Amino acid sequence: MNIPHKNASVVPKPDNSNLVKIVEGRNEHNQPVKVPVVTEIPLTIFLNNQEIVTTMSLGDWPDYLAVGFLKNQNMLNDNDIITGIDVDDDLGVVVVRTQRETDYEEKMKKKIQTSGCAQGTQFGDMMDAVGNITLDPDARIHTSAMMRLIKTINTMPSLYLSAGAIHGCVLAEGDNILAYIEDVGRHNAVDKIAGWMRLNHITGQNKIFYTTGRLTSEMVIKTVQMQIPILVSRSGFTHSGVAMAEQTGLTLIGRARGKRFTALTGCERIIDDHDDDRADDLGDDQGDDQGEKTSPQRAASRS
Amino acid sequence: MNIPHKNASVVPKPDNSNLVKIVEGRNEHNQPVKVPVVTEIPLTIFLNNQEIVTTMSLGDWPDYLAVGFLKNQNMLNDNDIITGIDVDDDLGVVVVRTQRETDYEEKMKKKIQTSGCAQGTQFGDMMDAVGNITLDPDARIHTSAMMRLIKTINTMPSLYLSAGAIHGCVLAEGDNILAYIEDVGRHNAVDKIAGWMRLNHITGQNKIFYTTGRLTSEMVIKTVQMQIPILVSRSGFTHSGVAMAEQTGLTLIGRARGKRFTALTGCERIIDDHDDDRADDLGDDQGDDQGEKTSPQRAASRS
Repeated sequence: MNIPHKNASVVPKPDNSNLVKIVEGRNEHNQPVKVPVVTEIPLTIFLNNQEIVTTMSLGDWPDYLAVGFLKNQNMLNDNDIITGIDVDDDLGVVVVRTQRETDYEEKMKKKIQTSGCAQGTQFGDMMDAVGNITLDPDARIHTSAMMRLIKTINTMPSLYLSAGAIHGCVLAEGDNILAYIEDVGRHNAVDKIAGWMRLNHITGQNKIFYTTGRLTSEMVIKTVQMQIPILVSRSGFTHSGVAMAEQTGLTLIGRARGKRFTALTGCERIIDDHDDDRADDLGDDQGDDQGEKTSPQRAASRS
Repeated sequence: MNIPHKNASVVPKPDNSNLVKIVEGRNEHNQPVKVPVVTEIPLTIFLNNQEIVTTMSLGDWPDYLAVGFLKNQNMLNDNDIITGIDVDDDLGVVVVRTQRETDYEEKMKKKIQTSGCAQGTQFGDMMDAVGNITLDPDARIHTSAMMRLIKTINTMPSLYLSAGAIHGCVLAEGDNILAYIEDVGRHNAVDKIAGWMRLNHITGQNKIFYTTGRLTSEMVIKTVQMQIPILVSRSGFTHSGVAMAEQTGLTLIGRARGKRFTALTGCERIIDDHDDDRADDLGDDQGDDQGEKTSPQRAASRS
């Protein structure tokens, strides 16, 4: 029996009581209910002796989150030697130490001018960072493997299934899940994957990145920074995300649910090999996601 | 015939070609498709002569977004006199001018230390700001009115219905929609409502705030800042959001779809008057939202 996710190094742990609290409330019939609710706690990231950021996070994998965040902000270079990562759960602090002395005082001053509240962070900087990245032109995604991958993601135990209100990201090779990580912040989930890759020396080439979140400009930039050529989401697109995917040569596949999807850029990497008859029971037909709703209007727009 | 949203001052404009682009791609059958995709463009907000932030936005209502953002960041006080709002669509710039001279150099330095990338912005500051706010204890929400409100929101024309990948926020009084505004960033959508309220002298007391986004700590804080006593979402909760709602006396209602919902705090404001027989056709049973999935596990957790 093929259980692809059994090979994954990191998978969600929905039974971890640190990540889910049971809260009592009332339902629509005014009856008492107990619902599982995901945790959301502040984590402050230091690079050596400099406080960089405080982010609201699920709380697991602070080491991956810190390393991935610093990497995606270009504060940690590919050839930096990490000499230690100290986590203090009580204080909610993680310190990443490098051999190289670091000082991002100037960069952080610049951040004042451009960083957005929940949107648009360090936009110019990040576009600079992806300008010279060439994504693997030979990478391929088979539609049959993609559908198996999505089915696996949607059926394996996760906080997404048990509690909701959370985003998940998956790094995969074909239909094999290498890492599946969740967080209350969709960008935190991406950064955790980036940190896991950095610390485990995993490259993005010929990998597939799956997210439950929307395909915005920031999501595209981070995927390209990780040098992953194919980005798949159950959610939809923004126009800026599509434009940047086009510009960077990323394969962008959205609204991927069950046996349906829409690819807007990099379609040459997609190999259509799925069999409609076999694809009937691939799960995930019920769910809509962030800002996503199947509507008569949208269906009609398919040509 | 009762069409509550006809009274709304601001409603979505899904036919505005500035807000949606048609993009060509391929579907799962390798057939060409044309899909509507929402715009996402940078907007830089100035307060007088100081550049404050650049945010990725849908692009409509830059005036509301700027004023609401500055208000929710406590850079614009309730008694500030706004002398002008200049928008330059080509440059993507909006300048809010006040009679009072403003200088947030120091505040923005502090932001360096605490602002998060897409999460956790100015957390300490915002908790300070809600500490002395008392929400209207006499405000009430009737479950029948809430269900009519949700049906109206889910059936009126919107970018959410036509293109997806967007968040919506609604300010309502009973089942009457006062303003329904969308944005690619869920916090931008909230800020736009806050700006609309500020510029139209609308207070939050006895209003209801509806969001498609999750009920996180930031969402709760912003609702309390707007002095709105009741927050409703189609999405789920984070534990920090619930804890802050408890602390501030906010009524928090999540997973509100069709005739179902879960209330976790402030239940005393909810008046149960809906009739199960009449509530059969209230729409919105198909949709799941950000990180939301109806699962056997979650259903089983209801006691």
